[in-house]
Amino acid sequence: MSIALPHILQLEPYKLGEQPPECAQAVKLNQNESPYPPSPKVAEALRRIGEEALRRYPDPECRELRAALAERLGAEPGQLFVGNGSSEIISLIAKAFLGSGGVLAMPDPSFGLYLTAAAACGGRAVPVPTRDDFTVDTDALLAVGAKVIALVNPNAPTGLPLPVSEIDRLAAAHPGLLVVDEAYIDYAEPGTSALPLLDRRPNLLILRTFSKSYALCGARVGYAVGGRPLIEALERARDIYNVNAVSRALALAALSDEAYLRETTAAVRATRDRCAGELRRLGCGVLPSQTNFLLVQPPVRRDQRDASASAASLAASLRAAGIYVRRFADHPRLSDRLRVSIGTDSEMDAFLSHVEQWLANRRD
Amino acid sequence: MSIALPHILQLEPYKLGEQPPECAQAVKLNQNESPYPPSPKVAEALRRIGEEALRRYPDPECRELRAALAERLGAEPGQLFVGNGSSEIISLIAKAFLGSGGVLAMPDPSFGLYLTAAAACGGRAVPVPTRDDFTVDTDALLAVGAKVIALVNPNAPTGLPLPVSEIDRLAAAHPGLLVVDEAYIDYAEPGTSALPLLDRRPNLLILRTFSKSYALCGARVGYAVGGRPLIEALERARDIYNVNAVSRALALAALSDEAYLRETTAAVRATRDRCAGELRRLGCGVLPSQTNFLLVQPPVRRDQRDASASAASLAASLRAAGIYVRRFADHPRLSDRLRVSIGTDSEMDAFLSHVEQWLANRRD
Repeated sequence: MSIALPHILQLEPYKLGEQPPECAQAVKLNQNESPYPPSPKVAEALRRIGEEALRRYPDPECRELRAALAERLGAEPGQLFVGNGSSEIISLIAKAFLGSGGVLAMPDPSFGLYLTAAAACGGRAVPVPTRDDFTVDTDALLAVGAKVIALVNPNAPTGLPLPVSEIDRLAAAHPGLLVVDEAYIDYAEPGTSALPLLDRRPNLLILRTFSKSYALCGARVGYAVGGRPLIEALERARDIYNVNAVSRALALAALSDEAYLRETTAAVRATRDRCAGELRRLGCGVLPSQTNFLLVQPPVRRDQRDASASAASLAASLRAAGIYVRRFADHPRLSDRLRVSIGTDSEMDAFLSHVEQWLANRRD
Repeated sequence: MSIALPHILQLEPYKLGEQPPECAQAVKLNQNESPYPPSPKVAEALRRIGEEALRRYPDPECRELRAALAERLGAEPGQLFVGNGSSEIISLIAKAFLGSGGVLAMPDPSFGLYLTAAAACGGRAVPVPTRDDFTVDTDALLAVGAKVIALVNPNAPTGLPLPVSEIDRLAAAHPGLLVVDEAYIDYAEPGTSALPLLDRRPNLLILRTFSKSYALCGARVGYAVGGRPLIEALERARDIYNVNAVSRALALAALSDEAYLRETTAAVRATRDRCAGELRRLGCGVLPSQTNFLLVQPPVRRDQRDASASAASLAASLRAAGIYVRRFADHPRLSDRLRVSIGTDSEMDAFLSHVEQWLANRRD
């Protein structure tokens, strides 16, 4: 018997992948973290943090970082919202736009945290199956009649982008809020972002994060860009000092080093495309990814009935060798695949040679 | 016309006091910040933060800090919740225990953020007037029949404690959640904390923060301690990585330096008691504070009709001299008073001599 609200007690918490023990020398390819450290300017900024920044409440409006982001994106500071990671912004979207009983529609598979956030506010999430090739079915999303539609673009864990023209069509036809989560946009081809639509789509809110391409997931900084009424609603719903003084300084430093961002994201893309080629050569199915991960389908042996057994066996074999990848064992359309984050070239070489060895010796 | 939820659009945002311009050499006595820097161990911890801590997602369960807090409080780690400042925990209480339409009762005056948090979740806050002497009326709180009762103890902005026996009685008689926010407990006399009640009051949740006595408000770390079912509800409602990697390391370092905490809080208490005496000597009304601030009522001139004019005049005069204090001009029972945070001895000397000078020359 608990005094908490029933929908909180019934909540299915978001499932994280297995974490390697802290002591282990693991190859960690399971959380889409950057394989490269943050910009050297971040370490400099960390060294410059003074006692005053810790002892005083930070600027509740986070003006400096918002202004820098606005300048970078060609927007106004009033169009920017900064959150304690995108995860906070996702919760605030549920709080400010969905609410108790509200319906959120989202492609399936996609990033499960949106579903958890909707349920945590007493709302309801409707997963809308992607097509057989995992592309997003925009008409099916619209048909739900949801208050909020959320997309991750390029999508996770498929890595596939939805064309901007389709996002535009969706924004035009949907009377409610359209969230486009561009967490992986810096790994995508130019022209993938929905940013150019902002001027004519007042119901469009774009999310981005410092956790992936800026290698700052430990700092927890995400942001949203959109029309002022959308940003104002998030501002009202948020906690008063939601982003701490240190993290905002680190994000500002990371943002200032565009050259480093270009260099590290180009390296990840090159490694990704090389790995995708190698995996296909080994007989794996690999979706064409525009992100920093690959969705990999190991080849199924002729005598095997259950395609997911192959993925389970490869994941276990990798883990035994200290290589951690993500498997969505409970998802019927993903259980035969592994999501593999792109690490350094040497990490990916270790991964690839393990896959090759497993294929040669498999007894699953 | 907005697509945000109606209760979000109607929300009255929490009002902050006026902030001095960043360039100004201000005496900042308006946000109850510590006048002393965080422990030197915090600066050491900051220097030890490595790239890995930034590049990797932090432990989602925040185990190290929870274990350290549990050990300090004589509790189990499962009884501890760590939040992105107490402000996040206050929002999560509304989300997990109050919800849409739920009623929260709270003494008035007290910390307004609880009311904002309730409203932001579509709940309703009922302010229950304190008695004429500003002591909390527990029977009136119970009479509301609220889902959640919240107390700040010692209370802000009065500085007055409610005896533990009264909290015990309240917890026993209230069928819902009782929140006791002990943000200022390290400035109170021994025996003020409700911690000893936890074992027998499963509906009691105690909040604490690193923002006041630990001088870490820039880092945003608060915590809650209570029975496991209460903590589990907060865990379900929170964002997955709600406390960043840097802030948790700083909090851990601050927690480890008990001697420094004792030294700095003793200094603040000594300064507070000296100032209260001086202000009374000058004719001001001062409530007996168990916190790091004083609620000060400047003397009213005999020919004055509006008692609040005196407080407004003193606040304006102080601000002109670069001394910032907090005034709750809109609150009928507080508009004749100023809340003055306890600064260093020299800051308080500047404040006191300004008050003395203002009293000598007043023309308000």
